[in-house]
Amino acid sequence: MNIKPHCFPGLGRWGRHSLVGLAILLLCLPLGAQAAVEEETQFVLNSFSFLIWGVLIMWMCAGFTMLESGSVRTKNASVICLKNIGLYSIAGLMFYLVGYNLMYVGVEEGGWFGSLQFLYGVSEDEIALLNGQEEALSSVVANGYSTMSDWFFQMVFVATTASIVSGTLAERVKLWSFFLFIVVLTALIYPVVGAWTWGGGWLSAMGFQDFAGSTIVHSTGGWAALARAMVVGSRKGKFREDGSVKPTPPSNVPVVTLGVFILWMGWFGFNGGSQLALGGAADVVAISNILANTNLAAAAGVVTAIAISRPILGRVDLLAGLNGAIAGLVAITAGPDIVDHNWAIIIGAVGAAICVTGLRFMEQLKIDDVVGAVPAHLFAGIWGTLAVCIAAGGDPLVQLTGILAVGVFVFTSSLLTWMVIERTLGARISPAVEELGQDVAELGIEAYPEFVVMPDNE
Amino acid sequence: MNIKPHCFPGLGRWGRHSLVGLAILLLCLPLGAQAAVEEETQFVLNSFSFLIWGVLIMWMCAGFTMLESGSVRTKNASVICLKNIGLYSIAGLMFYLVGYNLMYVGVEEGGWFGSLQFLYGVSEDEIALLNGQEEALSSVVANGYSTMSDWFFQMVFVATTASIVSGTLAERVKLWSFFLFIVVLTALIYPVVGAWTWGGGWLSAMGFQDFAGSTIVHSTGGWAALARAMVVGSRKGKFREDGSVKPTPPSNVPVVTLGVFILWMGWFGFNGGSQLALGGAADVVAISNILANTNLAAAAGVVTAIAISRPILGRVDLLAGLNGAIAGLVAITAGPDIVDHNWAIIIGAVGAAICVTGLRFMEQLKIDDVVGAVPAHLFAGIWGTLAVCIAAGGDPLVQLTGILAVGVFVFTSSLLTWMVIERTLGARISPAVEELGQDVAELGIEAYPEFVVMPDNE
Amino acid sequence: MNIKPHCFPGLGRWGRHSLVGLAILLLCLPLGAQAAVEEETQFVLNSFSFLIWGVLIMWMCAGFTMLESGSVRTKNASVICLKNIGLYSIAGLMFYLVGYNLMYVGVEEGGWFGSLQFLYGVSEDEIALLNGQEEALSSVVANGYSTMSDWFFQMVFVATTASIVSGTLAERVKLWSFFLFIVVLTALIYPVVGAWTWGGGWLSAMGFQDFAGSTIVHSTGGWAALARAMVVGSRKGKFREDGSVKPTPPSNVPVVTLGVFILWMGWFGFNGGSQLALGGAADVVAISNILANTNLAAAAGVVTAIAISRPILGRVDLLAGLNGAIAGLVAITAGPDIVDHNWAIIIGAVGAAICVTGLRFMEQLKIDDVVGAVPAHLFAGIWGTLAVCIAAGGDPLVQLTGILAVGVFVFTSSLLTWMVIERTLGARISPAVEELGQDVAELGIEAYPEFVVMPDNE
Repeated sequence: MNIKPHCFPGLGRWGRHSLVGLAILLLCLPLGAQAAVEEETQFVLNSFSFLIWGVLIMWMCAGFTMLESGSVRTKNASVICLKNIGLYSIAGLMFYLVGYNLMYVGVEEGGWFGSLQFLYGVSEDEIALLNGQEEALSSVVANGYSTMSDWFFQMVFVATTASIVSGTLAERVKLWSFFLFIVVLTALIYPVVGAWTWGGGWLSAMGFQDFAGSTIVHSTGGWAALARAMVVGSRKGKFREDGSVKPTPPSNVPVVTLGVFILWMGWFGFNGGSQLALGGAADVVAISNILANTNLAAAAGVVTAIAISRPILGRVDLLAGLNGAIAGLVAITAGPDIVDHNWAIIIGAVGAAICVTGLRFMEQLKIDDVVGAVPAHLFAGIWGTLAVCIAAGGDPLVQLTGILAVGVFVFTSSLLTWMVIERTLGARISPAVEELGQDVAELGIEAYPEFVVMPDNE
Repeated sequence: MNIKPHCFPGLGRWGRHSLVGLAILLLCLPLGAQAAVEEETQFVLNSFSFLIWGVLIMWMCAGFTMLESGSVRTKNASVICLKNIGLYSIAGLMFYLVGYNLMYVGVEEGGWFGSLQFLYGVSEDEIALLNGQEEALSSVVANGYSTMSDWFFQMVFVATTASIVSGTLAERVKLWSFFLFIVVLTALIYPVVGAWTWGGGWLSAMGFQDFAGSTIVHSTGGWAALARAMVVGSRKGKFREDGSVKPTPPSNVPVVTLGVFILWMGWFGFNGGSQLALGGAADVVAISNILANTNLAAAAGVVTAIAISRPILGRVDLLAGLNGAIAGLVAITAGPDIVDHNWAIIIGAVGAAICVTGLRFMEQLKIDDVVGAVPAHLFAGIWGTLAVCIAAGGDPLVQLTGILAVGVFVFTSSLLTWMVIERTLGARISPAVEELGQDVAELGIEAYPEFVVMPDNE
Repeated sequence: MNIKPHCFPGLGRWGRHSLVGLAILLLCLPLGAQAAVEEETQFVLNSFSFLIWGVLIMWMCAGFTMLESGSVRTKNASVICLKNIGLYSIAGLMFYLVGYNLMYVGVEEGGWFGSLQFLYGVSEDEIALLNGQEEALSSVVANGYSTMSDWFFQMVFVATTASIVSGTLAERVKLWSFFLFIVVLTALIYPVVGAWTWGGGWLSAMGFQDFAGSTIVHSTGGWAALARAMVVGSRKGKFREDGSVKPTPPSNVPVVTLGVFILWMGWFGFNGGSQLALGGAADVVAISNILANTNLAAAAGVVTAIAISRPILGRVDLLAGLNGAIAGLVAITAGPDIVDHNWAIIIGAVGAAICVTGLRFMEQLKIDDVVGAVPAHLFAGIWGTLAVCIAAGGDPLVQLTGILAVGVFVFTSSLLTWMVIERTLGARISPAVEELGQDVAELGIEAYPEFVVMPDNE
């Protein structure tokens, strides 16, 4: 018997819940059935799948770091590196301290959040097994996967959400204020959204579909970024008084490109691992389709973005192409398990078109998004979440409800958090620091101290 | 019962064919044999092997991008990034649209190419299984691996072939002309070569041995690059009128080095995954030997290239050392499954020596190969394909036939394609654009806009 | 029946020994037990685990290369790239030629080193199996994993040790002298330390605990680096006559940061793979805990280092944060299999605190360690090795004995080797070469030839 999320409506989401999902699964098992893949082998494969795909997702944090440190002015490139390694660390600690429990443990059916207790850890049965008590084996195996393999996999998702936020507000937010917001985002905001959906809460009960997180991860990151951008404002001189926009090209294009390749690679883990099982033929067939669709959507995104960048942005645009890959990936993330590859191509292409148009739209709104994270993660994420029901069926109203609920909650709670930070630590660096660059002013470490750099003239 | 390519002559290649290979395999199964590794577990492991190694091969595209963007002048570094992410995207779409069918579906024994039908996709049985029809399980499992896992694995090979081409002609080929050529290469040229060999066509029927593609991937890329270099000519000023060669050192050495490490890492997937199965002890034993031999050949390549670079090139040469790694890897790729590790070291060392000598030879022929892709991929690929029959037995005439046939076909068809492009879109950028740099002229995005760069004086 | 290192005291270490460990394992098997995970499946999973985690560890060499090439002056960045790809190659060849045999083959219980014979290779049984002799299957499978998968996994460990050495002495050691030392380190010094411990020698017999090598890998690298630093001396002008220290900030911060992310990612393979098996539920439970603890320790290291860098170093320090990650990772490496995650956080945090303090201490001792490898790998490695017995029990005296024995042996043998090199090839570059930079003087290849670089004024 296999763990086959496809047999059970919504199991892709339920399966993320350590206890409820499994209970359902086990009830569905025909008692005494002859195991095709032996049960302990399934346990090994399922857990290993969480771990190896999880490592690829962790790698995405390096991708965001490269993308962002190559996108900002050289005078702010060190601080963005520190922000990124810091946010990954904070996310990991917070998700251990409170986040996982809040998101997955004891979420009532249709509920709003899980347990408020501190710390998450290995199950008693697993400790017994590690201590050589063979009799614990059967109950360990019955869980379907090891507890910490699931924790590890879910932890890198919260880190991804946090990574999305750092790009938008680069070059103008104080280091410690940023870290404080990441604490709130990874300990509270994201886990609550997660509890509603993958944790088995109210949105899940409604039938909201978001396979690997177009809304739950990417829109959440995008909304939080948007809220911050609106509180903190744009970089000095970005929008000139005459209405024109100061171009701020990336300072290191090969590094940005590397970042996008890293993200693309990591996304195979992000979407593939979200099958949440590798214990049977149906799982690996699903993962194969997921990887193929993920790649097709991203490829279509790149080609579309390059093609439309000339009419929309006025030039064949590398950055549009790179953002097209990300937008294609974000868009397919809500439903990469749909079997039709042509839909994957369409979803990716439309996602990229929305992103490229969105880049222009954001400039018109005078919202300063350094790396284009809002168009790529939020706009394309909304599209992807809606596209699932177009391509694979489902209730568009439910999808819209999910998109709106997550949007309102994340935007509001992020806005509130930023307003509190603004009143206390202060959110924005001083004009003098902005002029000088955060690297010298906040760290005393320039990113490229030996290279001669042209002054950032305005 | 295991899928053990080693038991059946040429199965390494046949196994790449979805249908024929499997049919042979199944006929060989002793009916009613007690499965050692349970059949569905084999299916999971085989498919997963395609996916995880495939992800590593996809990563090689990032390696080529870094290698190339660090090798070109800074004024052309953005365009080469765009070319690389574009070619990976195009390769993936083309291989879905036409390439896979042409290469693998319905190739007659001894034939020249497969099906001309459009689009490739999941098998009916797999869709049934995903929809919960348990009765489809046995026919799905009988295929040995999931259809799209194989597609994914083969797709990243065509992308690698395309990547090889971009380096040689950097800094002087128009963006859209380049993309057009990639369409032809990945939709037609490479799949036809693939149909002759891994698809089960006439070269395969002759007994041509090329385990993971020294000829099929690397020489194909090399021949296509050589054809282009001859049509498009060298960079302005590269070969001076007085017969001297203008040195064009890489603009960013750490990035080039990173690229080579990425390629080395990805090559474990390239060669290891080409075992095409992970379902039994013999498979994993083979993959273990393959990874060990791959690493030994590359290591021997580096050491050899560093040692001989001083007498041949006049200095201890980092770039020779880096190309030595690649040449060693290319050379071992035709037969990494040979068990003798000493031969792996010799094959890698000789490959590197050929590459270093070839770098000098290309300069004497006044062929401008920006990253040394022709010596590293073509010259070392030819050596590797011949070395298989020296090290492990086999008919040298068959190997030579394969090398020549692939060479004539790829070189001619590439040359024709480029001549058509030359007459229509034009292949080469204008002297003014070449002077200014493609980044500013074609994209309007400099790779390092803030750094002060020395003028490229000639 | 599973291979469960946790059931047998010290098997984590014994299991690294190809023959002894397995013999013990097999004796423990209840004869005729009903296999939970079928035996050949276990063999496949165990071997695959070595390979895939091994690939991640190989990737760490790219991480060290980026870390180091971004840390040195731009004028020495090419040479450090060549040193790193060279050392990885040399390590691989030496471990094949002599290292593996010396470390693992025929080490007597309580002995000092293994076999002096040359070359390591596939077992006879495996060759028979690959040649289609089915009757060899059972003896192949009885080994638990394929011989070369183990070789591959152990090989990347010796490469890591060698990588640690290159950073400390950057910018002042001759290229060929460095390579010569790497030959001695990887062929003799590291394998002897390995024979005492993972090979089953005298330290192992005493009960010394070092799960994945806080002492065996990281302290060994650190001691060797320290010995070299003391023989070769500091960079010209690093310690001024007035007692002040010349700041030598990294020349390329994003590249350094990338290096740390690569190391962090690779460390999941380093620690996770050191479970040495994936064949049963207990193994994968252990690996899950190991990955979680590895991540928690590193995260705690980053947060701690950032927090304490201001009081200790006078500023919020990115480099301290990055070294904090490494120190946290090094510290947890001796016991990542302990189940208590809170201890993992404490071990990582203390490791980072020791590292940051150690950075200052090294400056006070006027020992010039370019990348901070001695504090991060040696000081944190000693702490981690002691922390195991605090957190998980064990004899502190045994741990201390191991730390001291490895320290005395590695430091002394490295010192001797360097003194011999000093008298023959010469260890240190000339003041003129140091002034000019090794890139131009030794290679004739600048790392960033087109960028305008400020003179290194002193």
